Amino acid sequence: MKASSHPARCIVLDWGTTNFRALLVAANGAILDRVETQDGIQSVPKGKFEAVLTRNIADWRSAYPALPIYAAGMITSRNGWIETPYVEAPANAEALAAAIKWVKLAGGGLIGFLPGLADESVKPFPDVMRGEETQLVGFGLEREMTAVLPGTHSKWARVGGGRIQRFRTFVTGEVFSVLSRHSFIAQLAKPQPEPNWNAFSMGLEASQGHTQLGGLLSNLFSVRTGWLAGKLTPDETSDYLSGLVVGMEFREAREMGWFKPGEGVGIIGGDPLVEVYRRAASAFGLEPRLGPSDAAVRGAIAIAEIAERMGHGI
Amino acid sequence: MKASSHPARCIVLDWGTTNFRALLVAANGAILDRVETQDGIQSVPKGKFEAVLTRNIADWRSAYPALPIYAAGMITSRNGWIETPYVEAPANAEALAAAIKWVKLAGGGLIGFLPGLADESVKPFPDVMRGEETQLVGFGLEREMTAVLPGTHSKWARVGGGRIQRFRTFVTGEVFSVLSRHSFIAQLAKPQPEPNWNAFSMGLEASQGHTQLGGLLSNLFSVRTGWLAGKLTPDETSDYLSGLVVGMEFREAREMGWFKPGEGVGIIGGDPLVEVYRRAASAFGLEPRLGPSDAAVRGAIAIAEIAERMGHGI
Repeated sequence: MKASSHPARCIVLDWGTTNFRALLVAANGAILDRVETQDGIQSVPKGKFEAVLTRNIADWRSAYPALPIYAAGMITSRNGWIETPYVEAPANAEALAAAIKWVKLAGGGLIGFLPGLADESVKPFPDVMRGEETQLVGFGLEREMTAVLPGTHSKWARVGGGRIQRFRTFVTGEVFSVLSRHSFIAQLAKPQPEPNWNAFSMGLEASQGHTQLGGLLSNLFSVRTGWLAGKLTPDETSDYLSGLVVGMEFREAREMGWFKPGEGVGIIGGDPLVEVYRRAASAFGLEPRLGPSDAAVRGAIAIAEIAERMGHGI
Repeated sequence: MKASSHPARCIVLDWGTTNFRALLVAANGAILDRVETQDGIQSVPKGKFEAVLTRNIADWRSAYPALPIYAAGMITSRNGWIETPYVEAPANAEALAAAIKWVKLAGGGLIGFLPGLADESVKPFPDVMRGEETQLVGFGLEREMTAVLPGTHSKWARVGGGRIQRFRTFVTGEVFSVLSRHSFIAQLAKPQPEPNWNAFSMGLEASQGHTQLGGLLSNLFSVRTGWLAGKLTPDETSDYLSGLVVGMEFREAREMGWFKPGEGVGIIGGDPLVEVYRRAASAFGLEPRLGPSDAAVRGAIAIAEIAERMGHGI
């Protein structure tokens, strides 16, 4: 544990499918200490979540036994510790704070599980997010803006007036991943350690045409025909595909009314995908506004403060 | 070998990536005998194609040593026996026949490798087919019509006036397959032995909305949200996904101008996908016209007859 002059005020857990991440947070929002392990929920047997938590943050628990813990991520899903409800969009941070589910820990103190968010207006079934709503709170909900959270299942959301107004999931990251690894593209592609932005731009361009040029199903074959035509090398294939599918996400988003060229768009996240989406946003005529890389933590702290002000759980 | 009163006139090979199929064909087009093995080109070492062919049809070769052999399928691709050129669309059967590549067999006689077809008008790279052009000839090129050939990489083609005018590849079958087996859908789905046409229709309906409802990337997540909402069971997931992706293919094709509701559409093939596409065509307001299940053989014979009339290879 690191020394700090600021007192700890809470513990924030970002507990996902494959990783466990815990942060010891000061009253001023500074991270005093952190723990990261491979104890994702898929590797923890049902009923063993508290034992894993206690083991991973034993030092903090003995130093601050009553410190509130806030948990977000897939730990709050059907396969996690406890399934929290979905708050319905439009929703503000107060609505998220009020829906926290509190559980008493055997070792003392409380853990608050943050809710997910549902958009009932999406057809044919309501759309859902779990964790991204917390990042959006950390990004800021005041200014009217569309924001995108790149990922396996990327999210487009409209925020403004203190609320998350509506959102939509695009499975872009997963489509890229399964095509790269398991399709005819896997036989062609020789992925490179560094992104080839020229090849990425070619893919983006291929996605940007008018409707008459086709959608995703009719453009994916260009990965092979580009190779047959001698215009795409195996080294370039993977980044071309990335440009194509991310570009298709932006095209779908534009056609659905998520943005108009010339507007600003928030890009929220902490991984290399942010640069990918920043370039795609520029290519589609948008002004990228990068969110803080620690939006998830900021959001959890903001929601925690509201919950504590409301007197919930304490 | 079966007895027949009709003399054999040629051998047709449909030699693909995973299967070898040979047909002994009579002058009247009747199939006198057939051989099917697992000797797809992926399992045959380069340079061993003639040995595999000779072994698989040894009886025919000794009975009819001079009988011409016509080969179509991936055997004519870069990874096959010999790579034949692509004829440029628009093309008629005569152009395909003239582009056959003839090779002398060590055991005597000739084998003619049928060409593929390219559409140079497709952006950003010319589209290609290899084998489907032969099926289209077998379906018939006289009547002005759009035809679809379902498959791993399904093809939409416009035929009429004796020509294949233009075409486009949709990677629908492969997208369905990799998502079913390797994505979040694989964790949910319990595929059933028989198609669930209700679930298929739900997927079709989800795909049929206006552009504002989104494209493939923003609709695929409905496989999970339908399950979360209690509207889709794991038993139904696979057929729902099938309806969704095939419906998206039809939607893209409609937006690209391949058809207008009320028109007829040819559906060419010999496998269970034909029924899937017949239902999708009806849902999109089209009149399905099923092609003969042996369109590939009919096409190869028609092209062979033209080649022989031209005096090529004989």
